[in-house]
Amino acid sequence: MKATIIGLGLIGGSFALSLKDKGFCDEVMGITRSERSAQKALERGLVDRIVTMDEALEKSDLIVLATPVDTIALMATKILNRIRPNQILMDMGSTKQELCETTMMHPNRGRLVATHPMWGTENSGPEAAVHNAFAGRTVVICERERSDKDAVEMVEKIYHALGMPIRYMSAEDQDMHCAYVSHISHITSFALALTVLEKEREEEHIFDLAGGGFESTVRLAKSLPQTWAPIFLENKYNVLDVLREHIHQLQILRRMLERDDREGLIEAMQRANKIRDILK
Amino acid sequence: MKATIIGLGLIGGSFALSLKDKGFCDEVMGITRSERSAQKALERGLVDRIVTMDEALEKSDLIVLATPVDTIALMATKILNRIRPNQILMDMGSTKQELCETTMMHPNRGRLVATHPMWGTENSGPEAAVHNAFAGRTVVICERERSDKDAVEMVEKIYHALGMPIRYMSAEDQDMHCAYVSHISHITSFALALTVLEKEREEEHIFDLAGGGFESTVRLAKSLPQTWAPIFLENKYNVLDVLREHIHQLQILRRMLERDDREGLIEAMQRANKIRDILK
Repeated sequence: MKATIIGLGLIGGSFALSLKDKGFCDEVMGITRSERSAQKALERGLVDRIVTMDEALEKSDLIVLATPVDTIALMATKILNRIRPNQILMDMGSTKQELCETTMMHPNRGRLVATHPMWGTENSGPEAAVHNAFAGRTVVICERERSDKDAVEMVEKIYHALGMPIRYMSAEDQDMHCAYVSHISHITSFALALTVLEKEREEEHIFDLAGGGFESTVRLAKSLPQTWAPIFLENKYNVLDVLREHIHQLQILRRMLERDDREGLIEAMQRANKIRDILK
Repeated sequence: MKATIIGLGLIGGSFALSLKDKGFCDEVMGITRSERSAQKALERGLVDRIVTMDEALEKSDLIVLATPVDTIALMATKILNRIRPNQILMDMGSTKQELCETTMMHPNRGRLVATHPMWGTENSGPEAAVHNAFAGRTVVICERERSDKDAVEMVEKIYHALGMPIRYMSAEDQDMHCAYVSHISHITSFALALTVLEKEREEEHIFDLAGGGFESTVRLAKSLPQTWAPIFLENKYNVLDVLREHIHQLQILRRMLERDDREGLIEAMQRANKIRDILK
């Protein structure tokens, strides 16, 4: 099989490595916007060569979209316009409603498989790509019934080989769930970093003390703005919903602290502790 | 040397193990409130035996306070009332102003060394104690000038042997800094867990998707309320200060998202990215 990966960053680059490592492809081609990223991807052996979109459409059995989410719906539509019946298109974006709605009536919609592998790190670019990235993580496939049987089965075969449990859901459900378990974590991390950096301007040495707890809550604030701004904007209403609830919970804790409400604080934290049972 | 650890949870239990592992003590005694905790500490070999306060004061060269912070100032005062000139008292609490202010004029203040080792995990109790816990983490010693030379040098020798860099600061500075780099991380984690658990009541399967990013931001929400409520309350004004700034930063991001302000979001996240340079 020949595959082309569009977007050779953390996700696309790691997926390219996985396709090779698992023996799915005798050739993996790449498309990327910048010369620097192309160089780096070749250097690191993520792809065998860089191609044009025309060549990708000519020669690929599988085309993989791994670009920022605000570019995926449009690119998917243009690729579906030219795709052949034996070719498969898949995407790896963190939001799904825009893509699924845009392509809904496309005569070639069946060739598209809409997926979201639930893996990532705070690093970005071709240098962030790693082997065996996705193992053990869940992947969501949206609107499976709109994809052709052969296309979705091939994509499932790949994700199975990568060791990923598959969940099926509507694009609406996937975007709502991801607002809770992924997007909000990034927003709070960014806000926490800004809070501390703001103070750091006044106070020296604040970071001499930064230990493990702080690093783990603020780690995601290192993530790439060009990846995450489009995700927050595409998933705006769900993210705002969660963000409002999160600010509300912080304000409840704040008022308890202002009133020295020890019992209230302990009761709230005991409720929060239940996250332990869920994240086993 | 003989030591008694008061409080055999995560911190006290791990410190007991370190004292033994590094060969500082031929006997480590323990004091703990509950029968269950005493049993567990003996079972796990954290201490050689459980003693009464009278026996601890009679036989210890070093007494270590590792109980919740709201108990430390009072216990330290009572122990200083009875301490002999060759004995050393140290504490390991996360806040320092209450302790340092309370003991300031005590005639035996010199026997006390006020310390805060910047290490912890989300786990608690004697079962959470681990070997080699503190290596590489910073320890703060407050108001070093109020401690007797021999007392502070012995405590420094222990922390050096544990591989911990030492920082000296006033109790005021330590509490302010820790509000930023430790206490706020716990509050945001608790609030994030409550946000998601609130939603979980309406929506099934939300946690099927919970991946690495979510786990790392929510990990601290597993922490013991009986440890953290006293810390937040003892450090109330600093914690409220940081919490207000954090809520403010979240509200700024929220308004940008409401207004589709892509540039504003990217600029804010780029500023947040600077945390990467600081947490090398």
